[in-house]
Amino acid sequence: MTENTLMNHQIVLNSRPNGAPTPDNFRAQSTPVPMPASGQVLLRTLYLSLDPYMRGRMSDAASYAAAVGIGEVMVGAVVARVEASQHPGYRVGDLVLANTGWQKFALSDTNDLIRLDADLAQPSLALGVLGMPGFTAYMGLLDIGQPKAGDTVVVAAASGAVGSVVGQIAKIKGCRVVGLAGGAEKCAYVVNELGFDACIDHRSPDFAQALATACAKGIDVYFESVGGAVFDAVLPLLNTGARIPVCGLIAHYNDTALPPGPDRLSLLTRTLLIKRIKMQGFIIFDDYGHRYDEFFTQMSKWVADGRIKFKEDIVDGLENAPQAFIGLLEGRNFGKLIVRVTKD
Amino acid sequence: MTENTLMNHQIVLNSRPNGAPTPDNFRAQSTPVPMPASGQVLLRTLYLSLDPYMRGRMSDAASYAAAVGIGEVMVGAVVARVEASQHPGYRVGDLVLANTGWQKFALSDTNDLIRLDADLAQPSLALGVLGMPGFTAYMGLLDIGQPKAGDTVVVAAASGAVGSVVGQIAKIKGCRVVGLAGGAEKCAYVVNELGFDACIDHRSPDFAQALATACAKGIDVYFESVGGAVFDAVLPLLNTGARIPVCGLIAHYNDTALPPGPDRLSLLTRTLLIKRIKMQGFIIFDDYGHRYDEFFTQMSKWVADGRIKFKEDIVDGLENAPQAFIGLLEGRNFGKLIVRVTKD
Repeated sequence: MTENTLMNHQIVLNSRPNGAPTPDNFRAQSTPVPMPASGQVLLRTLYLSLDPYMRGRMSDAASYAAAVGIGEVMVGAVVARVEASQHPGYRVGDLVLANTGWQKFALSDTNDLIRLDADLAQPSLALGVLGMPGFTAYMGLLDIGQPKAGDTVVVAAASGAVGSVVGQIAKIKGCRVVGLAGGAEKCAYVVNELGFDACIDHRSPDFAQALATACAKGIDVYFESVGGAVFDAVLPLLNTGARIPVCGLIAHYNDTALPPGPDRLSLLTRTLLIKRIKMQGFIIFDDYGHRYDEFFTQMSKWVADGRIKFKEDIVDGLENAPQAFIGLLEGRNFGKLIVRVTKD
Repeated sequence: MTENTLMNHQIVLNSRPNGAPTPDNFRAQSTPVPMPASGQVLLRTLYLSLDPYMRGRMSDAASYAAAVGIGEVMVGAVVARVEASQHPGYRVGDLVLANTGWQKFALSDTNDLIRLDADLAQPSLALGVLGMPGFTAYMGLLDIGQPKAGDTVVVAAASGAVGSVVGQIAKIKGCRVVGLAGGAEKCAYVVNELGFDACIDHRSPDFAQALATACAKGIDVYFESVGGAVFDAVLPLLNTGARIPVCGLIAHYNDTALPPGPDRLSLLTRTLLIKRIKMQGFIIFDDYGHRYDEFFTQMSKWVADGRIKFKEDIVDGLENAPQAFIGLLEGRNFGKLIVRVTKD
């Protein structure tokens, strides 16, 4: 290797966003690649996952995880190869899932690494259908949503990394599945490729009416990852005994203040009461980490059998991660958004 | 019996309330006592239960049960004796739990009757600690709230029929229990008689601060029956993984419009998400009717052993039911509110 290739490229948090993130909230920097000490490995990032939750880490408001500090490398899950090892359990070339964030190289003491099959045909799947988003879909729908055959299941962000899997599992369980997505192209994909029964464009002016028509028997499970106007349209359609797993609220991540009134907090609690609804937030690895193996075994089989399909939206080059992430919050991606950081 | 005693006295819904109910929403009327046809029994009401849910039945807004029609007898659970029987399974003098509402006499086809021990020492308990309110407390806390030893459990309306039982069960389960009640007298009762660890007066000007002080480790279970300013004070204190059973929202029953903004609906859903909270409404007999026997056996034992205490607020005379009910919605009762309709 030349000295050039041993420079590490990183994207750090340059400033905290006020509302939607902008490119100047991020800063690229280069530093020498560090060498592993005893017990460490040096990882080379192949794929970086971009996910909506990262918006929360850019703020210092209280959330479920610590904020990224100004000047610190942006957080994120990656698929990486061991480039150099001073750890007896890892060899150069090993493939791992790591949490080393938006950078080309990183040291790891290996404690939080998950080993992947070194010959995995499509290692980026470990960031999508076989990783955190798929796991979120699986546990949120099956454990909190408790879908029964014949239930109507409504899935926000239906063409996305989580929603696409939620809907397909619900179909396997015999439910009627209605997706919500932004634009005709995504809706067509959701119905024609993923096999949902219907998909409503949440940007269309008659969205609420179209959703009501598609859910003639009401909604038994609403898988929430969006909030905002989508939730407003869902709320009056919820059936008695409905279940609402909440894994995200992307419509609110850029909020700088609460919207104007009236204050509908009591409308929501009253709806939960009179319709006996369960609404439950969850953070996948915190709440269900102990069931990852169960998920991975089942989902690998569904994927191998062609019962769960997926779509990746791959962006080349770490330098393009900030723009891709900004687009993700605006719904501009189509499929699981992943940055190819270095070719394998 | 003279003809006088064979007149039935009833309280019917005279008009729908706009906000808080007023006496003219009710009307007393007398009609001849009907005679049972074959398969029927005539019931004489001993005790009528007054409960907050009845406010919902006075409105024709959508709720979990049908509204009482104008001119119809107000609904409610009663303890009654069989006065005359044309049903082979019931004899004069049998004691039953019935749903015959605000009247002295009523016919029943016996389908929804629950038989009580004819010699029950205190039959009114079947409307309180051993009836719907106690059952609501038991299942809501244990099944939805899932209290663990050491948890901090906060109980709204802590001196009331449901809250008093919730807190005492939570103490049996080893929790730290903080009650909320209106006024110094109720708070003293909750701590000194019921054994809660603390009780905060929700009318005091520094209520939110006092609650925060009493819940130094945050709140793991909040048993909700109130809403309004009480919930507002609870919301920021909820711990990660908290559970919120919702059995009522008495602060909102008289609302005629949503309060002014900002709109905090997304604040609530965001809190559920980032703290991984479960919030669940329930209607006791609809959701848990199949577990009534389990409840009754356990609660009877706790009451007999003196581990669950209770207080009744008994009002004499059916004609006083409207004023007593209006007072219930304002928190003027102290203990389970019951109308003694006829002396046994």
